[in-house]
Amino acid sequence: MKEQKTSRPKARLPRGFRDRGAAEIARERAVLDKIRAVYESYGFEQLETPAFEYTDALGKFLPDVDRPNEGVFSLKDDDEQWMSLRYDLTAPLARYVAENFQNLPKPFRRYAVGSVWRNEKPGPGRFREFTQFDADTVGSNSPSADAELLMMACDALEAVGLKRGEYVVKINSRKLLDGVLTSANIDMSKRGTVLRAIDKFDRLGERGVAALLGEGRKDESGDFTKGAGLDASQTAQVMRLLTGSADTASLSGMEDLTAIKAITSAAGYGDDRVQIDTSIIRGLDYYTGPVFEAQLQFAVQNDAGEEVVFGSVAGGGRYDDLVARFTGQQVPATGISIGVSRLLSALKDRNEAALSPLVVVLALDDAQSSFRMASELRAAGIRVETYVGTKKFGDQLKYADKRGAAIAVMEGSDERARGEVTLKDLALGAELAKTVETRAEWVGNREAQISVKRSDLVMNVRNMLARGK
Amino acid sequence: MKEQKTSRPKARLPRGFRDRGAAEIARERAVLDKIRAVYESYGFEQLETPAFEYTDALGKFLPDVDRPNEGVFSLKDDDEQWMSLRYDLTAPLARYVAENFQNLPKPFRRYAVGSVWRNEKPGPGRFREFTQFDADTVGSNSPSADAELLMMACDALEAVGLKRGEYVVKINSRKLLDGVLTSANIDMSKRGTVLRAIDKFDRLGERGVAALLGEGRKDESGDFTKGAGLDASQTAQVMRLLTGSADTASLSGMEDLTAIKAITSAAGYGDDRVQIDTSIIRGLDYYTGPVFEAQLQFAVQNDAGEEVVFGSVAGGGRYDDLVARFTGQQVPATGISIGVSRLLSALKDRNEAALSPLVVVLALDDAQSSFRMASELRAAGIRVETYVGTKKFGDQLKYADKRGAAIAVMEGSDERARGEVTLKDLALGAELAKTVETRAEWVGNREAQISVKRSDLVMNVRNMLARGK
Repeated sequence: MKEQKTSRPKARLPRGFRDRGAAEIARERAVLDKIRAVYESYGFEQLETPAFEYTDALGKFLPDVDRPNEGVFSLKDDDEQWMSLRYDLTAPLARYVAENFQNLPKPFRRYAVGSVWRNEKPGPGRFREFTQFDADTVGSNSPSADAELLMMACDALEAVGLKRGEYVVKINSRKLLDGVLTSANIDMSKRGTVLRAIDKFDRLGERGVAALLGEGRKDESGDFTKGAGLDASQTAQVMRLLTGSADTASLSGMEDLTAIKAITSAAGYGDDRVQIDTSIIRGLDYYTGPVFEAQLQFAVQNDAGEEVVFGSVAGGGRYDDLVARFTGQQVPATGISIGVSRLLSALKDRNEAALSPLVVVLALDDAQSSFRMASELRAAGIRVETYVGTKKFGDQLKYADKRGAAIAVMEGSDERARGEVTLKDLALGAELAKTVETRAEWVGNREAQISVKRSDLVMNVRNMLARGK
Repeated sequence: MKEQKTSRPKARLPRGFRDRGAAEIARERAVLDKIRAVYESYGFEQLETPAFEYTDALGKFLPDVDRPNEGVFSLKDDDEQWMSLRYDLTAPLARYVAENFQNLPKPFRRYAVGSVWRNEKPGPGRFREFTQFDADTVGSNSPSADAELLMMACDALEAVGLKRGEYVVKINSRKLLDGVLTSANIDMSKRGTVLRAIDKFDRLGERGVAALLGEGRKDESGDFTKGAGLDASQTAQVMRLLTGSADTASLSGMEDLTAIKAITSAAGYGDDRVQIDTSIIRGLDYYTGPVFEAQLQFAVQNDAGEEVVFGSVAGGGRYDDLVARFTGQQVPATGISIGVSRLLSALKDRNEAALSPLVVVLALDDAQSSFRMASELRAAGIRVETYVGTKKFGDQLKYADKRGAAIAVMEGSDERARGEVTLKDLALGAELAKTVETRAEWVGNREAQISVKRSDLVMNVRNMLARGK
């Protein structure tokens, strides 16, 4: 190949991306299947849109505006149109609804699950490709639509193994904030900066947010982030909303929240699961009314080994203007998105979707016979593989060990002549190896190994697997 | 929003991409689950690599070299390194193996499933994002490894619903062709062009391929494709191999194929399922020995309404040099890839993964009561949704109809006072509507609608669903 002649590429993962193995993928699949079952039981149906959208159709709603391409991976197609990889599943939904409006049931309810890509600075546990699971209702301005999504999210979180009390879905309305901005005479051009400052409340606390609302804030590394430039009184009014000490009863937006709460409460989703919290804001620019955030309440260790509350695993809200970007006509819409990777890491030790134990048929001198044995075992529902590598016996045992196999099946030519086959209990063998002291003792110890009739292979493997449980 | 003030983007799918609805996604999921079960029963485990790889790590192996970027979607990361979306699942595997070689069991066997992207000219049924399902064995040069993949592919195709005789897995070796190139004195620099010409055999036939091996070929649209420039005798020798009339027994490469055939035959995968066919070549540049292609034998209608043999749904082969691109050390490898979208379209009318019938609870005046009814039905395992749109009754019935619901549940305030609820059998209603001639008759006809006790809701919905079967 040409490449070899010149210089060899280095085998390396792109920055901020990752490979995932069987165990993690199986855990994710189990979680996705459970969420899917809940959403389908509510009558939501799946929709899949492509990885790419035209850049103008996606719009620019990501909070982190400091990055090139505004956080999106983009490229120019050969007809000179810019395309971007989707950064969430909501913007593509708005495009889909605008494109197919006439043919859709109203309201249109769909769920979607898939990868999204963010062109962000990677960090520990922060990847540039991750999985979201969204449900949205388009074409209804009823609080029923919002309430339904919240209840569905509660059901989904419990379906994946969270207990009552381990999570809470918090709701707020962007309108409350807009009311405060108006009454405090804060210019609407500062809305985005104020939003992003508030969104950092859980990380930076009151002082940090207050600094970002005012002149700005210097972080631990010495980097300075310019603030929104509010004066002291304006900052105080925003902070009162944030800390729950503002009188919100009379504010526009509160009636949406109480209507939603009334429905969820009546359906049995009480204050332990759905709560109004005026500090919830969500980072995305496109929300217009109620916003939602599902938070996990239990403590976990962060990378520094400190105990922290796990925090957000899902978020969403109303985005009544997103379809109108295309059509000019307002179409009310609301949605909630589960961050699957975050949820998975919270559930780390639950939902183990263990594979059944593995049997490896070694290939001593007759590949055809090995395949026949494997085929018989497989037909009996046993997870089995045939070793297909080198003929060296040592390599074969090393392989079975590395694969974590429970049993190795061996058939040498002598045994074949006698109509026999040897089964080695690898789990028991490893146990025994701990207690024996000399090689002679080990070789003499045949407890982990039995010779059985070839015709009774399946029965004996079954028995050995049963013993190992 | 800013966009509205200037000009509105047009809501449109990017060229060559598509949206997919619930029914098609469910069909695909059913097929993927069946293939997965077969591959896992052989002891293959899933690996997932990211959508992006560094461009130099992916290499340039796509056959269609006429396109910009050589058929790949690429962009420059903000550290100036070029990244590309994966165009198959093999090149990322080679990168993974080279990067993690020390820690992997040898041989390393994994399956992978996911989207791949090709920056190609879109056409009818030809998309730029599609799903592949791959299985590969890295680190074994034994024909057992190839044979196992072929048997596994047969099992997978039967698991998704194909009958014995509807498919055949054909095998050939690139070495046969290389032997002919050498003996016919054809310069190795022409190998790529010759490969691509042969790969078009099923589409262009003998004359078309012969033209592409010689001076070139003008297609129906008048476009001229330059040929490999072989002379008449050289072309004739290649064509003999292609049409099966060459004496191949003595050629290098044939012994690999007979060794593979011996194993598959002994395992019961006879000539009806695994066949040597010297016209199979596969387009990708990286194959070094045996190549595989699974073909469907039955006739389907093409877009022009003509009957054609369906053709290839899977392909693969040995690529012993792909890991060496990184490490310099040859690591033998072999794999097979199922083109899931093609397989799905071949299976169009099989594998229907029907959703259970849907019940819609209309929202007449009390959303909370509607949600309670839905929740009871859901707890009983019934797929049910609450209407969350406008209060107009007409809109609600139209919605239930558009969703294809089996039953509408209605509870007006009078009924609620009486402790009753109305069930409308929408399927039966549609049937009856065909036979009635006047609106009066229709309104008078209550057969499709019953009033039941609120407390017996679940039982009555169950009975009505059972009747509809």
